[in-house]
Amino acid sequence: MNEANLILIGFGVIGKGVGRVLLKKRDLIRKRYKKNIKIVAVCEVDGSIIDKDGIDLKATIELAEKNRLREHEKWKSINAVDVIRSIKADIVLELTPGDIKTGEPGLTHIKEALGQGMNVVTSNKAPLALKFRELMKEAQKNNVRLRYEATVGGGIPIINLYDDGLRINEIKSVYGILNGTSNYILGKMEEELLDLETALKEAKELGIAEPDPSYDIKGIDTGAKVAILANSLMDMEVSFKDINIVGIEDITPEAVDLAKKHGYSIKLIGDVRRLEVSPRLIPMDHPMNVSGFLNAITINTDLAKDITLIGRGAGAEETASSIFSDVMSILDH
Amino acid sequence: MNEANLILIGFGVIGKGVGRVLLKKRDLIRKRYKKNIKIVAVCEVDGSIIDKDGIDLKATIELAEKNRLREHEKWKSINAVDVIRSIKADIVLELTPGDIKTGEPGLTHIKEALGQGMNVVTSNKAPLALKFRELMKEAQKNNVRLRYEATVGGGIPIINLYDDGLRINEIKSVYGILNGTSNYILGKMEEELLDLETALKEAKELGIAEPDPSYDIKGIDTGAKVAILANSLMDMEVSFKDINIVGIEDITPEAVDLAKKHGYSIKLIGDVRRLEVSPRLIPMDHPMNVSGFLNAITINTDLAKDITLIGRGAGAEETASSIFSDVMSILDH
Repeated sequence: MNEANLILIGFGVIGKGVGRVLLKKRDLIRKRYKKNIKIVAVCEVDGSIIDKDGIDLKATIELAEKNRLREHEKWKSINAVDVIRSIKADIVLELTPGDIKTGEPGLTHIKEALGQGMNVVTSNKAPLALKFRELMKEAQKNNVRLRYEATVGGGIPIINLYDDGLRINEIKSVYGILNGTSNYILGKMEEELLDLETALKEAKELGIAEPDPSYDIKGIDTGAKVAILANSLMDMEVSFKDINIVGIEDITPEAVDLAKKHGYSIKLIGDVRRLEVSPRLIPMDHPMNVSGFLNAITINTDLAKDITLIGRGAGAEETASSIFSDVMSILDH
Repeated sequence: MNEANLILIGFGVIGKGVGRVLLKKRDLIRKRYKKNIKIVAVCEVDGSIIDKDGIDLKATIELAEKNRLREHEKWKSINAVDVIRSIKADIVLELTPGDIKTGEPGLTHIKEALGQGMNVVTSNKAPLALKFRELMKEAQKNNVRLRYEATVGGGIPIINLYDDGLRINEIKSVYGILNGTSNYILGKMEEELLDLETALKEAKELGIAEPDPSYDIKGIDTGAKVAILANSLMDMEVSFKDINIVGIEDITPEAVDLAKKHGYSIKLIGDVRRLEVSPRLIPMDHPMNVSGFLNAITINTDLAKDITLIGRGAGAEETASSIFSDVMSILDH
């Protein structure tokens, strides 16, 4: 049995989700992969919990749920960068939310971890959307790996699919519905002929949309994912600023209704080859025309032709599924 | 640059497709994977072409196209089993069509190749549908690998998706449209309200359905795929005979029309958890409701939830895409 030590940065919805999934799957991971995964540090924005023997995840998650993480007996006001510099782990999980203008604080965390010779798995879009090539070079230089399945499509294994299942294919185009919140809102507008504000208000009341959903509505979240897919699947060297983005903020119920009458749905589409995010008309019987929170991604290849993946683009367990696929892949090597 | 020698058994539509794709992708494989792939033998039912320096694929494919393979200067009346026993290769590609009652001739080819310590990649459903566990044990015993992505879903990387992208997930169910020909026929019946015989005749005239399409229509092809998925994705120990199969041969235009009027399509569904193949009603707006030759497979998992894959379930290039994913995976290890 191999020990594998993980540092976990960010203990919000995704971080706690990763913790919960690890509690649930620890035995399976021991049995199937012969690995004993220990969380040796949990870092939050104002301090960290460190335990080289492995943090008691159950108690720590319970404290976090009650917003009392700072009462943990091992809580210290040491920040993530200092934890990365002082503790040797096999993998750093960077699970903080990112600022699309600066990529921080994740960008610094990822660079530091790679520089210290530690592998990184992240769900944080901003650093990769801004500095994909630079970070990959940093990983290569240090002979470690940086994996990011969870940054695009939640639980949908789109990056792994390409890496492993479509090896000698040339990718001609990639496009899809990459943001669940905007897709839910467009669906509500179509079904109930609501205006955007009403549909958005409803989504917020259901706890579906973030208090500040502008990243979703303005297409910024989709744009960040397009930048990541362009680098990883289409071998382009681009950054978030190269993506032309039009969001759904100006879509009217009249436009939605008119499209519907002609057999189309309006969907916010990220088009990777064209480096473009925009609302487009999709025929109602097209496989991409998914409803609710679903994401749908089509990869057009020279040999396998069109492969479409549909699944949940968000959610704590779904995202943790992708994170652990990356973790296990690193531990396998 | 590593040399990789392949024996290719079966030079029909799929075998020639593999040859053509190799010609097209040889440089990419050299560049990206640092492998030089040579075909050292091509075996047909009544003889083989052997060249340890690598067969000239272009000329060989041209001869085969003209039905003049036997005029190849290196053609000998030596059968595949003797080739396997006398030539050492890295991978044997078993690409013959299989008899679902006996699994032959592929079953013997695969056993022989594994027994000789050679890896096997196959597109042949019958041997795996009948003897999955036995063949996997044989591979393990000989410390080689047997891969079979191309047996299910043509170019759709369903097996790789599970192996790599959903690692710690528990698979709760798998179901889908796994046979393109029957899906095409049901689609024709629905669109044009044809009876099955007329739709089938049309498919044959277009060269879409085989001269003997009974494996497709009777659900046997789908059943073989269900048996393979049950073993590989759901860890069940079953054989083809354990699958309950009802085909589409008794579907009437009236039934199709009635379903359509209620917003449903009739689709031939392979249900892996239930070990069942049967025509089912699928809501017209369901992601699984794909048209034409497409295949669609939904995997329901505990963490990532439902992941649906849609793509082309047949075709020479599509199948070759899956075969080369397996080949490259073996050569990578």
